[in-house]
This record gives sequence, C-alpha cells and structure tokens, in this order.
Amino acid sequence: MYDISMTIAKDMLVYKGKDEIRPRLEVYRDFKTGDAHETKLEMNVHTGTHIDAPLHMLEDGQTGNLFFDEKPFYKAKLLDLTDVKKSISASDLQKFKINKNDFIILKTINSKPGFLEETPAEFIYLDQSGAEYLIEQQIKGVGIDTNGIERNQSEHPTHKNLLKNKIIILEGLRLNQVPADSYFLLLSLLKIANSDGLPARAYLFAAGEIESILAQL
Amino acid sequence: MYDISMTIAKDMLVYKGKDEIRPRLEVYRDFKTGDAHETKLEMNVHTGTHIDAPLHMLEDGQTGNLFFDEKPFYKAKLLDLTDVKKSISASDLQKFKINKNDFIILKTINSKPGFLEETPAEFIYLDQSGAEYLIEQQIKGVGIDTNGIERNQSEHPTHKNLLKNKIIILEGLRLNQVPADSYFLLLSLLKIANSDGLPARAYLFAAGEIESILAQL
Repeated sequence: MYDISMTIAKDMLVYKGKDEIRPRLEVYRDFKTGDAHETKLEMNVHTGTHIDAPLHMLEDGQTGNLFFDEKPFYKAKLLDLTDVKKSISASDLQKFKINKNDFIILKTINSKPGFLEETPAEFIYLDQSGAEYLIEQQIKGVGIDTNGIERNQSEHPTHKNLLKNKIIILEGLRLNQVPADSYFLLLSLLKIANSDGLPARAYLFAAGEIESILAQL
Repeated sequence: MYDISMTIAKDMLVYKGKDEIRPRLEVYRDFKTGDAHETKLEMNVHTGTHIDAPLHMLEDGQTGNLFFDEKPFYKAKLLDLTDVKKSISASDLQKFKINKNDFIILKTINSKPGFLEETPAEFIYLDQSGAEYLIEQQIKGVGIDTNGIERNQSEHPTHKNLLKNKIIILEGLRLNQVPADSYFLLLSLLKIANSDGLPARAYLFAAGEIESILAQL
C-alpha cells in the first residue's frame, strides 16, 4: 500500500510556492484555556492532494457534488515520465498502453526530493496535446505529482478540456516511492457541498492487496 | 455501499447546534474577478464526520499523526440502539456479540430525521459504563451518529478512557439508511499534521462487496 497523499501543514508545498495560499491551523482552545484541544483549519480547497470540480475552470461547470456518489475505487496505471522536461505532450504518452477507464498517474521529476522546493513555479505539467491524447483514450481520471496539472498555457486548455470531458483531475500526489506499475487507486474525497475542489486522501494498492487486507481483518 | 459521511455545508448539523462552530465556505475568486473559481474552507476539525486524536481530550495525548500509517479498512458491526433513551450504557451493549478488533457503529435515535435538528443538545451518547464495556471487549474503534460521543459527564470519562486505550472515536456518522449488520468500514482521514482531529470520509460495504467492485473495474 502506498499512501500518495500530501500532509497538510503550514510549511507544505503549495501551488507555485505562493504564501497567500498556505493552509492555516489555529489552535483556538487548549488545556490552558479549557478542557479540550481544538483546532481550526483554514485552507483553499485546492491545497495538497485534491480534485478539481468542473466549476473550477468552467463558468457553467458542475460542482464537486458530481462526485458524491462515485465508488472510491479505480483501476490505475502509474507512468514513469521522470525524463520529461518542461511538459508532458501526446508524444510522451503514446509509448504507453492506456485503456479506457484507466486512472492515469503521471510521475515526473516533480517527485524528486528538492525539485519543487527549489523551483516551485517550474513544475512539469500536462500540456494541451497530452490532455487531448488522454481524452481520446477515454480515461477516467488523471493524477500528477504537483499542485497544478497545468501552467504556462493561456486559457487553461488542459484543465478545460479534461473537465468538459468529465475526466477527474487529481493534483498534489506524492509519488517518489512508487514504481511504475498497474494499481488500484483508492480515492476518497472530503464531502464539501457545492465546491470547486475537494481535498482527498489517495492510496495505491497492488493487484490482490486490498482483498488480502480484507481477508486478514 | 453506504456512504455514511456528512456533507460539509454552512447549514449542516454541528455540535449542539452552536453557530460559532459552523464551517465557512468563502468563494474568494470567481469568473467575475478572474479566470477560475476557488473556495476557501474554514472549519473546526471536529465538524461533520471526523475522528478525535488522543490530544483532543488528553493533555499528553498523541496527535492524529498516530493514524497516518493505518490501513483504511476495518471489520465493522452496526448495532441498532434506536430504542435507547438518553445514553448507551454497558447493559445496552451486553446483548450484542462484539469481537476483539471490531469497529462498533452505534445507531441511535439521533439518526431519525428531525431528531437532532429539533434538539441538537439532547443527543444520545455513549456513557462511561458503555465505554468501559467496549474497552473490555478490545474493540478497534467506535462510531456514533452525532457530532459528539459524549455529553453531560463531568471530566469526559467516555472520551478519555477510549482515547487512553487507543480506540478510534468516529463522530458525525449518517446512519439513517443503514440496517444493523456486519460490514467492512472504509475510513479515510484527511492527513492534517499534528491535529487533535481529522475530518473523514466513511463508507460501509457488505461482505464481498469491495471484492466485487474491484473485479468489475
């Protein structure tokens, strides 16, 4: 089992390193002032591991309510794209076998320890041609190892085309420890009403691993 | 599959109906002012479906980091306690077969539509004797269908005894549609660093159901 979720903390990696979108954790009650310890979380819903709802980039797009009834399991394939510079294009993806309904996980040099810390605004992203190629393959969703799946493209065609095609965009994955392979993705979304994004917890399991965990309970 | 998670919204049920702990969802960027729609969530981490970390009630208690490496699956048993008035005691629990490592889900009249809306401070809770009985059975965790597992007991013995024994307290479940039975619980926690509570998504599956979902992917 690989937990591919980011830990939410005030010093975590955020989109392009922008301080104004860092989460805040405020302890507003503790044992000095009361008989319990309680924390308030203040966070952009696009922080850490999360999905984008169509509303995030499409003016008439649906909210995250769209995903409330999804079963949280997906067939996933992690692709090693760690040799890609700047952006992932159709030509980088054509060498892989991608099936209809796959949840494609893009592992890039973003996952290399230090890379995003040093150049948070220079992350590897999925470009328009890459997004269009994945749409043609009728994938279920696409995940990437940084807080954005796109930068540097005017009008955000990667986001918009994926969202128009109801493909789940999963951002903020931690993939450094995970080798390229087929997996089952467990993607569990915080159930926030009418939101443009949903914070998530995500795990990858090898074939047969979930069944084996259940059998041992 | 039963999704037993609450939806996070500003008009949701909160602990004893206290307005000051309602979540806030603030749209701070939309298509009138920019090219994307982004929401900020501001929420007590003990809102909606969530678990309590030992630190919530124990001065030297561990944070939610304790749960980061847990496998998110548990063997669960939903007990029908809808005839209990005021609080669940050891004598209410003794009639059920409870096994070591069970995750016990307490379904009470809190789940009856309208009950908590009308009397949010009068919720049914697990009393000290009930908690001690469950500790003796060496359960893994206990869940309940309201935002608190306890009220009306000075010094919070239910919380403290469960947390001292590393039993997971899961609050804010929606159980109205779910019959008493054995299940597999999928409990997925938002990975917030050093927190006294962790918002969660929770599902119950019948025996064999997860395996069947995976086989059909």
